[in-house]
Amino acid sequence: MHSIQELQQIIDQAVKDTTYPSEPKELYEPISYLMALGGKRLRPAMVLMATDLFGGDIQEALAPALAVELFHNFTLMHDDIMDKAPLRRGQPTVHAKWNEAVAILSGDVMFVKAYKMMIQVKPDILSPVLEVFNQTAVGVCEGQQIDMNFERRAEVSIPEYVEMIRLKTAVLVGGALKIGALIGNASEKDAQLLYEFGENLGIAFQLQDDILDVYGDPEKFGKQVGGDIISNKKTFLLIKALELAEGETAKSLNHWLNLTQFDAEAKVKAVRTIYDVLGIRELSESIMLAYADKATSSFNGINIPENNKTTLLSFANLLIKREN
Amino acid sequence: MHSIQELQQIIDQAVKDTTYPSEPKELYEPISYLMALGGKRLRPAMVLMATDLFGGDIQEALAPALAVELFHNFTLMHDDIMDKAPLRRGQPTVHAKWNEAVAILSGDVMFVKAYKMMIQVKPDILSPVLEVFNQTAVGVCEGQQIDMNFERRAEVSIPEYVEMIRLKTAVLVGGALKIGALIGNASEKDAQLLYEFGENLGIAFQLQDDILDVYGDPEKFGKQVGGDIISNKKTFLLIKALELAEGETAKSLNHWLNLTQFDAEAKVKAVRTIYDVLGIRELSESIMLAYADKATSSFNGINIPENNKTTLLSFANLLIKREN
Repeated sequence: MHSIQELQQIIDQAVKDTTYPSEPKELYEPISYLMALGGKRLRPAMVLMATDLFGGDIQEALAPALAVELFHNFTLMHDDIMDKAPLRRGQPTVHAKWNEAVAILSGDVMFVKAYKMMIQVKPDILSPVLEVFNQTAVGVCEGQQIDMNFERRAEVSIPEYVEMIRLKTAVLVGGALKIGALIGNASEKDAQLLYEFGENLGIAFQLQDDILDVYGDPEKFGKQVGGDIISNKKTFLLIKALELAEGETAKSLNHWLNLTQFDAEAKVKAVRTIYDVLGIRELSESIMLAYADKATSSFNGINIPENNKTTLLSFANLLIKREN
Repeated sequence: MHSIQELQQIIDQAVKDTTYPSEPKELYEPISYLMALGGKRLRPAMVLMATDLFGGDIQEALAPALAVELFHNFTLMHDDIMDKAPLRRGQPTVHAKWNEAVAILSGDVMFVKAYKMMIQVKPDILSPVLEVFNQTAVGVCEGQQIDMNFERRAEVSIPEYVEMIRLKTAVLVGGALKIGALIGNASEKDAQLLYEFGENLGIAFQLQDDILDVYGDPEKFGKQVGGDIISNKKTFLLIKALELAEGETAKSLNHWLNLTQFDAEAKVKAVRTIYDVLGIRELSESIMLAYADKATSSFNGINIPENNKTTLLSFANLLIKREN
């Protein structure tokens, strides 16, 4: 078994070693640029961990792991255009640094490169691996569309929100793990259990993200704390608060949501106070932990020696308890 | 062997029979919309023809043929955003009818659907089929980028132009045929010869497109004749004319190219007259026919009974002699 640090190092090295054609440079420079911006490399690490979990050869899982990371970054490149985001990991987004046409086309070719990496798996698992990958990709696209639709809707329910983050975030966590499991020759049943572990862990991960955006330590969070509040983003916290707030609390919450001009710090503070009154943090954490428990319960059903399970379990714990 | 009409009918029916999920509708409606706008369905027909050529089962080739058509339409959806095109086949483009975000994301999911269709080939040819498909997709993206770069460049040479249309148009013709050949159990050598036939035919096809844009019969062409002249598009004809024009002819050509305000009809007439003086039509046709001959020569090398070859050869002739 490999430690998390070892696996992340292997991936970082592999990302650094990956080269792209030099021409046309508008097509390939943005790929190198975005891939070099870093990030936690969680998804590719999960591919390797899953292969390792079943005693498979992690060298065989390396190209598919990079495929998952390329795919993830391709979705970021296109999402940033759609969201008109100026920054990604503190640096200009591709469409901001180059232009939209470059970000569209470079993203497209990045997606093809992901498939090129993915088909390097052994022929006997190529078809099931691609089925997982395709299904994952469709889910991520659907999740992004539903997320954009939420912006234009007055009301979103908690089940709708969870379904959105399941598609946008969690299916890729599940997919990465299932692909790694298939490479490690896991049985269909174990691969599916690991998928379910990943999907529920992914939902917990995103809920934790929502919580950190409001309650994170500004020193550790990496992004601006309160960003979701400032932009009225319909996260679990806001949806739940809108559901629970009554009387003066509801009036005050809606007042802040409807203001077009406001002091950002004052809004964050005011909305956070309303969340505190309603007990939103505790509620969110308990739901988050319920998904984490559901994940663990699937994981426990996997038919391998308990010893092998420690790395992935402690990784899951790290994700849930992270501060950034 | 099936006739061209039979194969096109099979494809039209299959396109009509293909359904997409109903939600999120912003993701799937644009796919149905664009696919229903029609087009000649040349590329999917070529997949079937190639399978048929080697005596394969065209039912096995149907899903991959649709994959090729989906892929082609995905590139159109994204290209139309980049080119800011308002119309496609006389109807509003997807980004014009919905918006850019929809056209980006719907295109992405269309690309995944293409892969989903493509992986329905038999497991023993899955890997080589996907290698062709990936290579084709990379080529098409590179071609589109180079085409966009040409717009910003003062000078483009004939070899650069031919390389651009090879990537943007011809590799997909070659790729469609090679995939069909692999499904028909062609030998690697024959599949490659058919690829080369397709690539050269694709170059001839695009050159014919350039010629028709200037010299097509307005009654039959379907698009506005002279569109390339109006927009100063660096086609084979313009590049060759700029290469050959001297003295007063060069001065007059550059005068029309540099005008920012002009009567469209007058410009088309004037530039066409310059082309006539320089013998551009004949030159273009002879180059076009040279690529068609190169295509035929690869085709002749394919090791199958001459009888089987008639459908594809007459199809190739139709493409070269077409008026729209």
